[in-house]
Amino acid sequence: MHQITLLIHCEDQPNIIALVTNFISNREGNIIYIDQHVDREQNIFFMRLECEFNSASFSIEKFKQLFSTTLADTFQLKWNIFEADKKPKMALFVSKYDHCLYDILGRYNSGELHLEIPFILSNHSDLKPIADSFKIPFYHVPISKTTKIEAEQEQLRLLELHQIDFIVLARYMQIVSGTLIHKYPNRIINIHHSFLPAFVGAKPYHSAYKRGVKIIGATSHYITEELDAGPIIEQDVTHVSHSHSIKDLIAKGRDLEKIVLSNAIKLHANRKVMVYDNKTVIFS
Amino acid sequence: MHQITLLIHCEDQPNIIALVTNFISNREGNIIYIDQHVDREQNIFFMRLECEFNSASFSIEKFKQLFSTTLADTFQLKWNIFEADKKPKMALFVSKYDHCLYDILGRYNSGELHLEIPFILSNHSDLKPIADSFKIPFYHVPISKTTKIEAEQEQLRLLELHQIDFIVLARYMQIVSGTLIHKYPNRIINIHHSFLPAFVGAKPYHSAYKRGVKIIGATSHYITEELDAGPIIEQDVTHVSHSHSIKDLIAKGRDLEKIVLSNAIKLHANRKVMVYDNKTVIFS
Amino acid sequence: MHQITLLIHCEDQPNIIALVTNFISNREGNIIYIDQHVDREQNIFFMRLECEFNSASFSIEKFKQLFSTTLADTFQLKWNIFEADKKPKMALFVSKYDHCLYDILGRYNSGELHLEIPFILSNHSDLKPIADSFKIPFYHVPISKTTKIEAEQEQLRLLELHQIDFIVLARYMQIVSGTLIHKYPNRIINIHHSFLPAFVGAKPYHSAYKRGVKIIGATSHYITEELDAGPIIEQDVTHVSHSHSIKDLIAKGRDLEKIVLSNAIKLHANRKVMVYDNKTVIFS
Amino acid sequence: MHQITLLIHCEDQPNIIALVTNFISNREGNIIYIDQHVDREQNIFFMRLECEFNSASFSIEKFKQLFSTTLADTFQLKWNIFEADKKPKMALFVSKYDHCLYDILGRYNSGELHLEIPFILSNHSDLKPIADSFKIPFYHVPISKTTKIEAEQEQLRLLELHQIDFIVLARYMQIVSGTLIHKYPNRIINIHHSFLPAFVGAKPYHSAYKRGVKIIGATSHYITEELDAGPIIEQDVTHVSHSHSIKDLIAKGRDLEKIVLSNAIKLHANRKVMVYDNKTVIFS
Repeated sequence: MHQITLLIHCEDQPNIIALVTNFISNREGNIIYIDQHVDREQNIFFMRLECEFNSASFSIEKFKQLFSTTLADTFQLKWNIFEADKKPKMALFVSKYDHCLYDILGRYNSGELHLEIPFILSNHSDLKPIADSFKIPFYHVPISKTTKIEAEQEQLRLLELHQIDFIVLARYMQIVSGTLIHKYPNRIINIHHSFLPAFVGAKPYHSAYKRGVKIIGATSHYITEELDAGPIIEQDVTHVSHSHSIKDLIAKGRDLEKIVLSNAIKLHANRKVMVYDNKTVIFS
Repeated sequence: MHQITLLIHCEDQPNIIALVTNFISNREGNIIYIDQHVDREQNIFFMRLECEFNSASFSIEKFKQLFSTTLADTFQLKWNIFEADKKPKMALFVSKYDHCLYDILGRYNSGELHLEIPFILSNHSDLKPIADSFKIPFYHVPISKTTKIEAEQEQLRLLELHQIDFIVLARYMQIVSGTLIHKYPNRIINIHHSFLPAFVGAKPYHSAYKRGVKIIGATSHYITEELDAGPIIEQDVTHVSHSHSIKDLIAKGRDLEKIVLSNAIKLHANRKVMVYDNKTVIFS
Repeated sequence: MHQITLLIHCEDQPNIIALVTNFISNREGNIIYIDQHVDREQNIFFMRLECEFNSASFSIEKFKQLFSTTLADTFQLKWNIFEADKKPKMALFVSKYDHCLYDILGRYNSGELHLEIPFILSNHSDLKPIADSFKIPFYHVPISKTTKIEAEQEQLRLLELHQIDFIVLARYMQIVSGTLIHKYPNRIINIHHSFLPAFVGAKPYHSAYKRGVKIIGATSHYITEELDAGPIIEQDVTHVSHSHSIKDLIAKGRDLEKIVLSNAIKLHANRKVMVYDNKTVIFS
Repeated sequence: MHQITLLIHCEDQPNIIALVTNFISNREGNIIYIDQHVDREQNIFFMRLECEFNSASFSIEKFKQLFSTTLADTFQLKWNIFEADKKPKMALFVSKYDHCLYDILGRYNSGELHLEIPFILSNHSDLKPIADSFKIPFYHVPISKTTKIEAEQEQLRLLELHQIDFIVLARYMQIVSGTLIHKYPNRIINIHHSFLPAFVGAKPYHSAYKRGVKIIGATSHYITEELDAGPIIEQDVTHVSHSHSIKDLIAKGRDLEKIVLSNAIKLHANRKVMVYDNKTVIFS
């Protein structure tokens, strides 16, 4: 049995749901999940389907080709088809903070994440023992003003070598270059330690403390060229009070960061995120 | 233009999504919303669709008949079709507490609720001035041990007279009879002032205080014959501490009760709730 | 029996708690509540006490004088003493939105608020019937470019006439003048319909929609001369998704606004808020 | 400099705050934190103080003795004094689930927890590699029907040998014996994977699924002889829907469990919990 996930977006037009469901039905596919969204401001239609094909003769290549020529070209659909049994490959970029790393690797070990982690990369070697204890290759790629370009070349080499699908910055603490962003558009996930768009940039907990907010947050988003302004995947918050010092905010924030980032990873890996107009559609 | 909402549930079977979407497409309908759910334990398929028909010759009666003979009978679908321009009629039963009543009527006035309120009924006359200020008919139907049966007859008479679709018990404080429950199955919405199934029955805030819980809740559910055990539509909670007295819990709880109940009313009135096996499927 | 609430702040110094508790004990007072906070960045000490005096001969004036000469002058305490049986007087400023008004008046009626509402003031007459139904005087003070100064004079006259202690802007939709702000420093409470400091200014729900946030919020704060930048009293948030239109955000936001504002009113009226360095200390 | 934390509870009586603060002041102590609570139903007074003593001649033993004879005996205070520089010793009991273990050890490593972990104990050997990677001794004490008593003897031996102050059951999955409970009253912390008192006992996620709740929770509480009925320290919840399978609930629940348990550990280790009448007072 083959199971696929189909993501489509296009200009909104009548009958599009019936056309696609029909197409699948005619190929002896059975739809086991369907969800759709229409952005009425932009007039864009989004759809996510999961279907099963029992036929022994099913070929994903033939299906893609037929879908492309029969439907996609005619109705100008943008689409992606993913096979359920092919796990996406995720590279983990970290620096010195370990809370997100432990959280992700704990879930990975427990089978909660539908993905593979070919390697962990860091500009410091501090977290190597954690990578070792989970038996995941660890690359130490130091970054300094003079070695920045070589470091990036090394990153790109590793990403290609391991056929990485998407990158997660688990408190990586480094600005990612435009080259990397262009090679992995909407495929680099960051965790920002504030409720964006409040407190963009460095030291958001210090800013939150200074402003005297009663709630702090964390935001996971795709990296774009504009700092902390990419499409938001997931956010969560927690209540704080005057009695919390900056150190307390940082500690409370760690709990938000790790869970928000892990949720964003799961949504992306399960192909539940579509990006349009710098925003995300998150399917359930 | 006609807009309808279609709710279906049936035994899960291949192709059911394609069959239904096709049927609508063949009648020149355009699907503007589709969502589905499969209960894998019970093997039941649920679907909610919204479709538009532009044709001047569209007849809802003919559509229902065709749907019934062509699809529903063949595939043993249980179904309901609602016309978007027909607002459901809701009867409000209250007692002496006014917070849910004000909340509902405030939303009603602001146009937030897609429904009509033909009348408010109470076993006390205390809240009549509120009904008056919102210009909604108010019936005072007192209940005592000896008049219980007459009171219920009067309730049934009013419900039929006003062609009520569903009843909301906005802190009504009376046990509803089996007769009423059977006449309005899954159409009587209650608000219980605890996070069910914790603290079933009377005085849940007192029980919560005694148990020393750190969170209190409210639950909106359909009334069934078993007390506080009907299908749950909506729940919410709030944090409390040792410093809260029972009176504080009651005050904090009022905020939960009114918002949880209003949310449940909106879900029901917008035909987003399906009930099966004493549970609800809530479409988005 | 006399019950008082005492608020103190001063430079942090040893023994201050013992000095104050002793002072009260020596006047035959019994402390029934004490809480304190030290801002370690600014080195400021804050304390809130509730005490009871049973003696028939207790005089609040004498107590204040003694406290001032014995303690406050010596240790440079800034202080406020409130008598529990004197309810603060709150003026409600509204415009055309009624959800916060209903929420506040519903609580007022139920006895939940320890305050008096001498009048409601609006630049429109739309909400007069609500004020009437709750039997609260309503003043219609229209504002136009040419009448702005007269309108403000009329506001000030009414505030003085009714000996108003604090003002609540329940979605008042007008910029309050510097004159008013200086007359009621940290005594004008506003509700802003976003999670500040995100989305300062007009149309925050539109901005939230455009940015694609997954959480929206509401913030109650004291008005200062800088727009939406005053000390934050209370905030709350709710989750949203791509499926929510701006209209949906506005509706969901109303539920936040009314509860956040009412909570802020209760905190202020119960003398649980202290302001320092544009932030609040909120006692429990 | 010596810093101590003082916990007191007694029958509520006038002047108790002034008496205690005076006592400390007279010993040249400086109070840096004070909080109190009165249970008005039971008429019990609770207080928590943190004080500093700068004097080189300060002796904790002498202070305790004086406090006992001067204050505690006279006013029948129940009390505990803890020295800030003495970290409590916590034993971790685990079984096969690793999410709580990773969460606790990650925080331990980052310096977030004010405690020592002399050992981890389990009835299975599965989690030994995790203990090893964090360099914490791991004892495998298998339990079977026939070895139950020997196993408990071994547990008691290890607890005494390592001078353990409190025990944390991090998804230990075994019923703890009455002997252990009596030796560590209100000092054995459990994490139950439901919002207690809903879903007491085994398989709470299965029960939550069956009941169709819209919110699931986790509860950390002290172990008492009655199953899942001990004093609640901390609770948290998360929203779920019909679309979540039991497996999904279990995965979402893990995130609650680990954070709720870690918060409870922090509260206990920081001496912020007082227990009375099977409930907790949690100081801030």
